[in-house]
Amino acid sequence: MARFAVLFVWVLTVISVVSVRYEPNWESLDTRPLPGWYDAAKVGIFIHWGVFSVPAVESEWFWWDWEGVKSPAVVNFMKDNYPPDFTYADFAKDFRAEFFNASEWAEIFQASGAQYIVLTSKHHEGYTNWPSRYSFNWNSQDVGPARDIVGELATAIRNETDMFFGLYHSLFEWFHPLYLQDKANKWQTQKFVQSKTLPELYEIVNRYKPDVIWSDGDWEAPDSYWNSTNFIAWLYNDSPVKDSVVTNDRWGQGVMCKHGGFLTCSDRYNPGKLQKKKWENAMTIDKQSWGYRRNTRLSEFLTTDELVATLVETVSCGGNILVNVGPTSDGKIIPVFEERLRELGQWLKVNSEAIYGSHPWTYQNDTVTPNVWYTKTKISSTTAVYAIVLDWPSSGVLRLGAPSMDGSGVVYLLGYQQQVKFTPQTSGGVAIQLPVFTEGRMPCKHAWVFRLLGVKN
Amino acid sequence: MARFAVLFVWVLTVISVVSVRYEPNWESLDTRPLPGWYDAAKVGIFIHWGVFSVPAVESEWFWWDWEGVKSPAVVNFMKDNYPPDFTYADFAKDFRAEFFNASEWAEIFQASGAQYIVLTSKHHEGYTNWPSRYSFNWNSQDVGPARDIVGELATAIRNETDMFFGLYHSLFEWFHPLYLQDKANKWQTQKFVQSKTLPELYEIVNRYKPDVIWSDGDWEAPDSYWNSTNFIAWLYNDSPVKDSVVTNDRWGQGVMCKHGGFLTCSDRYNPGKLQKKKWENAMTIDKQSWGYRRNTRLSEFLTTDELVATLVETVSCGGNILVNVGPTSDGKIIPVFEERLRELGQWLKVNSEAIYGSHPWTYQNDTVTPNVWYTKTKISSTTAVYAIVLDWPSSGVLRLGAPSMDGSGVVYLLGYQQQVKFTPQTSGGVAIQLPVFTEGRMPCKHAWVFRLLGVKN
Amino acid sequence: MARFAVLFVWVLTVISVVSVRYEPNWESLDTRPLPGWYDAAKVGIFIHWGVFSVPAVESEWFWWDWEGVKSPAVVNFMKDNYPPDFTYADFAKDFRAEFFNASEWAEIFQASGAQYIVLTSKHHEGYTNWPSRYSFNWNSQDVGPARDIVGELATAIRNETDMFFGLYHSLFEWFHPLYLQDKANKWQTQKFVQSKTLPELYEIVNRYKPDVIWSDGDWEAPDSYWNSTNFIAWLYNDSPVKDSVVTNDRWGQGVMCKHGGFLTCSDRYNPGKLQKKKWENAMTIDKQSWGYRRNTRLSEFLTTDELVATLVETVSCGGNILVNVGPTSDGKIIPVFEERLRELGQWLKVNSEAIYGSHPWTYQNDTVTPNVWYTKTKISSTTAVYAIVLDWPSSGVLRLGAPSMDGSGVVYLLGYQQQVKFTPQTSGGVAIQLPVFTEGRMPCKHAWVFRLLGVKN
Amino acid sequence: MARFAVLFVWVLTVISVVSVRYEPNWESLDTRPLPGWYDAAKVGIFIHWGVFSVPAVESEWFWWDWEGVKSPAVVNFMKDNYPPDFTYADFAKDFRAEFFNASEWAEIFQASGAQYIVLTSKHHEGYTNWPSRYSFNWNSQDVGPARDIVGELATAIRNETDMFFGLYHSLFEWFHPLYLQDKANKWQTQKFVQSKTLPELYEIVNRYKPDVIWSDGDWEAPDSYWNSTNFIAWLYNDSPVKDSVVTNDRWGQGVMCKHGGFLTCSDRYNPGKLQKKKWENAMTIDKQSWGYRRNTRLSEFLTTDELVATLVETVSCGGNILVNVGPTSDGKIIPVFEERLRELGQWLKVNSEAIYGSHPWTYQNDTVTPNVWYTKTKISSTTAVYAIVLDWPSSGVLRLGAPSMDGSGVVYLLGYQQQVKFTPQTSGGVAIQLPVFTEGRMPCKHAWVFRLLGVKN
Repeated sequence: MARFAVLFVWVLTVISVVSVRYEPNWESLDTRPLPGWYDAAKVGIFIHWGVFSVPAVESEWFWWDWEGVKSPAVVNFMKDNYPPDFTYADFAKDFRAEFFNASEWAEIFQASGAQYIVLTSKHHEGYTNWPSRYSFNWNSQDVGPARDIVGELATAIRNETDMFFGLYHSLFEWFHPLYLQDKANKWQTQKFVQSKTLPELYEIVNRYKPDVIWSDGDWEAPDSYWNSTNFIAWLYNDSPVKDSVVTNDRWGQGVMCKHGGFLTCSDRYNPGKLQKKKWENAMTIDKQSWGYRRNTRLSEFLTTDELVATLVETVSCGGNILVNVGPTSDGKIIPVFEERLRELGQWLKVNSEAIYGSHPWTYQNDTVTPNVWYTKTKISSTTAVYAIVLDWPSSGVLRLGAPSMDGSGVVYLLGYQQQVKFTPQTSGGVAIQLPVFTEGRMPCKHAWVFRLLGVKN
Repeated sequence: MARFAVLFVWVLTVISVVSVRYEPNWESLDTRPLPGWYDAAKVGIFIHWGVFSVPAVESEWFWWDWEGVKSPAVVNFMKDNYPPDFTYADFAKDFRAEFFNASEWAEIFQASGAQYIVLTSKHHEGYTNWPSRYSFNWNSQDVGPARDIVGELATAIRNETDMFFGLYHSLFEWFHPLYLQDKANKWQTQKFVQSKTLPELYEIVNRYKPDVIWSDGDWEAPDSYWNSTNFIAWLYNDSPVKDSVVTNDRWGQGVMCKHGGFLTCSDRYNPGKLQKKKWENAMTIDKQSWGYRRNTRLSEFLTTDELVATLVETVSCGGNILVNVGPTSDGKIIPVFEERLRELGQWLKVNSEAIYGSHPWTYQNDTVTPNVWYTKTKISSTTAVYAIVLDWPSSGVLRLGAPSMDGSGVVYLLGYQQQVKFTPQTSGGVAIQLPVFTEGRMPCKHAWVFRLLGVKN
Repeated sequence: MARFAVLFVWVLTVISVVSVRYEPNWESLDTRPLPGWYDAAKVGIFIHWGVFSVPAVESEWFWWDWEGVKSPAVVNFMKDNYPPDFTYADFAKDFRAEFFNASEWAEIFQASGAQYIVLTSKHHEGYTNWPSRYSFNWNSQDVGPARDIVGELATAIRNETDMFFGLYHSLFEWFHPLYLQDKANKWQTQKFVQSKTLPELYEIVNRYKPDVIWSDGDWEAPDSYWNSTNFIAWLYNDSPVKDSVVTNDRWGQGVMCKHGGFLTCSDRYNPGKLQKKKWENAMTIDKQSWGYRRNTRLSEFLTTDELVATLVETVSCGGNILVNVGPTSDGKIIPVFEERLRELGQWLKVNSEAIYGSHPWTYQNDTVTPNVWYTKTKISSTTAVYAIVLDWPSSGVLRLGAPSMDGSGVVYLLGYQQQVKFTPQTSGGVAIQLPVFTEGRMPCKHAWVFRLLGVKN
Repeated sequence: MARFAVLFVWVLTVISVVSVRYEPNWESLDTRPLPGWYDAAKVGIFIHWGVFSVPAVESEWFWWDWEGVKSPAVVNFMKDNYPPDFTYADFAKDFRAEFFNASEWAEIFQASGAQYIVLTSKHHEGYTNWPSRYSFNWNSQDVGPARDIVGELATAIRNETDMFFGLYHSLFEWFHPLYLQDKANKWQTQKFVQSKTLPELYEIVNRYKPDVIWSDGDWEAPDSYWNSTNFIAWLYNDSPVKDSVVTNDRWGQGVMCKHGGFLTCSDRYNPGKLQKKKWENAMTIDKQSWGYRRNTRLSEFLTTDELVATLVETVSCGGNILVNVGPTSDGKIIPVFEERLRELGQWLKVNSEAIYGSHPWTYQNDTVTPNVWYTKTKISSTTAVYAIVLDWPSSGVLRLGAPSMDGSGVVYLLGYQQQVKFTPQTSGGVAIQLPVFTEGRMPCKHAWVFRLLGVKN
């Protein structure tokens, strides 16, 4: 999808919200319509990068696993490979990012068909990927890369692609002493929030103008502790991104899956049925970790088949998918990630119209054939229903139970020039005669999309 | 192919050579038949690992590029990322190999369908991957991993797989002062050979009993300097691996492609036509480097299609393929390599009979349809000719010009249960009616093999 | 001096101040009498230790010299020895302190005769030598030593010596972004002070109960910016050390040498004449640096002669001396420092009564013989005047112009059992007949003290 | 002493030996007179520098203590401060020598009054401080400093001072596999000697032309293993330093203290009585270690008093003293060493005539007064006897029992212009009336020398 279409929807949305001001409470904030670009975009790239990318073992929760819960695997890894007095902060010097080239990343992400990216500006370790005023000597300019990672990527994404640019931000920090103090005070003090979390949030919004604020690390404390509603009200009313920005639902204990912008509900959320509110499936290609792991095996990565299937299920049920990759500490997207992303992009190139700007249809998956999912779009007065088939039927016939069609309907296979023959079934539904392809001639791999025009229900 | 078959052929060979002694000259040495396992094996894995895996930039020739030819790319990489007085040997400390698990490698290599492996025991940098007596503090036990890499891998390969175990060994060392002195003396002295090269070669043969000695780094000096023929005579006559060992042709200036065991002729040698002597195509999945590079892009790796095609071409023309991967300095085979290797293994599983133990046929490639290559095997009195098709014809008919068949012949597609119909052509050759598969039902990807029984020529 | 004597004076002082409360302005704060222990103590040890001890070149101002003023010497040192993107915070990991043993330091400092120590809790680099809540991952627990340096030393000094324990603290931090922001705002904002400086100061006072707060880094901003008077009022009125604590005068632009506790006026302040207020000469044994330098030459250290002379001049004029040593990054006081300190202690052992608890006399130095300095003490009703002679007269006679004595007076040489003969001079003053010592029999080296009893002026 | 005097004696010696050739056996070799410069020089500086200077703990035997005898102190030091798989060779990278300035060292050594220096070209660890052809990647050019340390120091010593330049060299290497193999073969093989020890020795002699070869590490094997006599015969007959070179006695099991050049007998050899052959007292200022230790205390260093006393005892008994300092891994002589050396130099400046070019007298120490040692010199026909007094008698009279003098004799105190009164004693010996000095006027500290002219015995 060209960004133009997204922009079009979005401009309309902007016009409609122009004079509203939101109050700092969920009742009011929840009334704000999501800027249209977000729902239309459907596919984003999530990037987890930080000091955890240096040990690059276990996951981005390395520090917590080591010194929080003291997981034997991580404790032993440290014992086996580092001196006894080695600290987590000692890793930061080796976050070199010497090969980090934001343009190179931008090219890969764009090739994946994603419409937006979300970068960890700061994960639970507290290390900021930008030169924050509030994280002296624990940021990517002061120790390690000596670069403004957020800034470099924001610039490349905006100048070299038509994607939107978003930032992940962790409200809490596992080991920040002021956070631990507030926690010990049962959230009756807000030293951490006032001196760290909020100043940081304002700083990244004002400085980098992100289109997404992907909040996290909220769950231990109530939203009143985080001052979430005040911040979001500012974000919606007065911030430099008030018209374009979207945010999620991780803004305080009990808030997730209820309030905020789009809902994330849980990591790798994929409910399999239509949701009432716009939601997002944040998931990982490395099945076990968001941050890069040096010691992965191939079997721990999703195949492109699995990735496309997840995308299709997600979009059919009204969600966006946020596909995570973890770069190496030297700044590369490793080839297996690049391969998955490029193959996703090839699939999306053929099947874009069923995904970008699409909406859930009456049915999400088919009533007769498993692993068939639906989306729809309306182009002027015509509604197209898309049946997305994850398993190509070996019988040569695709039987769909959900759509009602009569002879006036038309069926296409995306990427294939000719109409496809089908037979309305007396029991309802249709039987589609599958075209036969010799090896290498199918329009795409992984999943196939039938555009159904003239569906009656 | 199970190793049993290989062993069978090999046992026969052993019996036939049992009483011969070779003289230390090429005339005599060239008469030795290759132990049969080698030709039968067809597929090997090449592993380049060393101190060069630490900078992991440019290629395993990093040191030479930096301080030999002073390539600007490498000189600048050092300037940008290291202190001015940093030396190559300073890298060795960071060769940690902390994730190196020989069993894990063995499993991956076996899954690739390879029948032997060849590990760099020492590359041109001179660092030995075993605790050599002749490379004090410049070996993997004394500095860096603190492990006997050759020993660990030899044990795993032998105990956990049925593959053969080989060692690459560089005769010369770019910067060894004794080598440079001998060179300055126009090879009239042999200090380096006597105190380093030869003792090392005897040491690895006696200690690790490799089935392959893959020699390299020979080209600057004559074989008389290297004492090659003496060493090989010992290897063939008296060494503990005299019956099983094979070696290559890189044993001195002018020797390559002429004398020795199997011929390698050049890196990535793939002549495209039948060779008189047994040869090997040593090639890389990373198209630009044998050693691991941290800053690769996906486009720099062979696809599995390309890898299978190279294998097929090589075997059709009588060669073995030696597929190279470069592990990381922490000891992992990165996922993209693992993926290529496992996909190769899946292909070989289906098509093993056309590869292992096969022989070149009268024709190497087809006279009518491009990208069709031939092999043959003889099972008891029956000869099977295999036509290996790299591009599945979109016409539904495969026209082969080379084989003469009449109605008594039979054609099978490997991995497919039923016979395949074919029509002998009046002009000679046959037209094979291709079976039709729905998506996902083909017996394999990348290339397809037709077993032709009853070929007349 | 035993700590008992110091305590005695101090108890009296405490009683006298018990009901006073100070207002947060200099008029009021300046009325507070210094707790008596401080004037009585006379000799302290200053310790500069921090991340600057890792490069250990140039001085503790290394960072500023490098990236602030870009001094060529430091810029070139970095160019010659580190990669281009190396940051100052990257040094912290190598602050190992592996040999740091607080008991060992305590023993050396006590042996020097010092009565108090002052440790840099934080220098201008901002790195805290204690696990500050306000310096996450930029403190000695989180990165580098993984230890609470302030805590360990406080405990050792208190448990193993009778010295007082003080802390140096820099108000400003060269490169802290909040400080730079406040500065850019011409001190109209106090973000840095409110979130960093003040919380830190309260934290160290409450946690470590220092007897000295040695403030520094004040000069760019007015005391109103630093909230100095409020902090000091709390320190004097309500802090856990309100009765014992002393502070200095570095509390804001224009405050130094005017207000506060004792005056420091400038580094190595040694005015050579009596001062109206109590003052301190903070000086270094390494003549060029407070922090450890790895590349010193012997000529850059004060000799013990010079050190004793400086002590004598300082005490005669009413000052205390604060003798600085810079430990190595691995935690040792190098031998040349230890030697100077132990020799100072040997001198003080012999001459303690002229120093500890002494007061300036009518004259500070002699009117006739150069390099003779005076102190006095009153023991019950007797006043003793001490003439401290830096150069032993080669004539055998010491002529003093300042003291008036008649035949009823008595003169002793400290460390020498017998009375010393003297002759009152008609022109005023006295001529003291020096005893003759064979080599090695003098009571001490460096300087000699004559106790004059019966001085009339 | 100016080098001229030394040269004078030496030239005479050279003339006398010019036509002799030595056989490779001790009988012959032991007949060679020591080149005269050596006996005349009396004072040398020993420098232990190598990879052991990086851990800089325990001593230069660190590696052996750690992995040879597994001393708990060193094993625990490694456990506490390094990762488990850290190897000794991993230290080499941190041997940076960034402050090493050979001219600076030369100036300090010359200021000590030393007449020659001996640098460890290679210690038992095997690391060569020059770019040896026989120690690839385990030398100071290839790993660590990236400099030719031996070469730089040789040049500075020769161009900037009039000292002689010597090299220490260890025959054995604790962990060299070829050495261990020869040892396992009970010295019946000589792989190590032939490929390492001897080539190295020839290399350093030919390349750096050392005036001293200070051999060590010989004790486990017989001289026949080391080929010592052959090497020394070459050194004496044909080497480029055949006329000037001296060597010691550590050339094989049982050889020490018997054969060779000067005798060393044991570390810190100081027999206290006259020896038949020329000998040397190799000793250390750091009482416990030859290599630098980071964690020393002042009490572990000799005082200058002790150092001068050792020098005096040594010279009186016919020995030379070789005073050892261990530079830091960054290339500095630490101040406490510099201080001892410069104070030694000040003493030697005053008392040079009693030391340089002197000879033992009839008596080595006095028969009546302890701690008085004698030397003598002959200047034209006059013999001067020097009584060197370590403790200045508090009685004012120095009673010497050894020298017989009558009224015609003359006594001087070196550094003091006037004659000193003495009284011949009826019981033999003399009573010298000591001059009285006021503080600071003595000609020197530490020890005092009386020149006795007209001694009858």
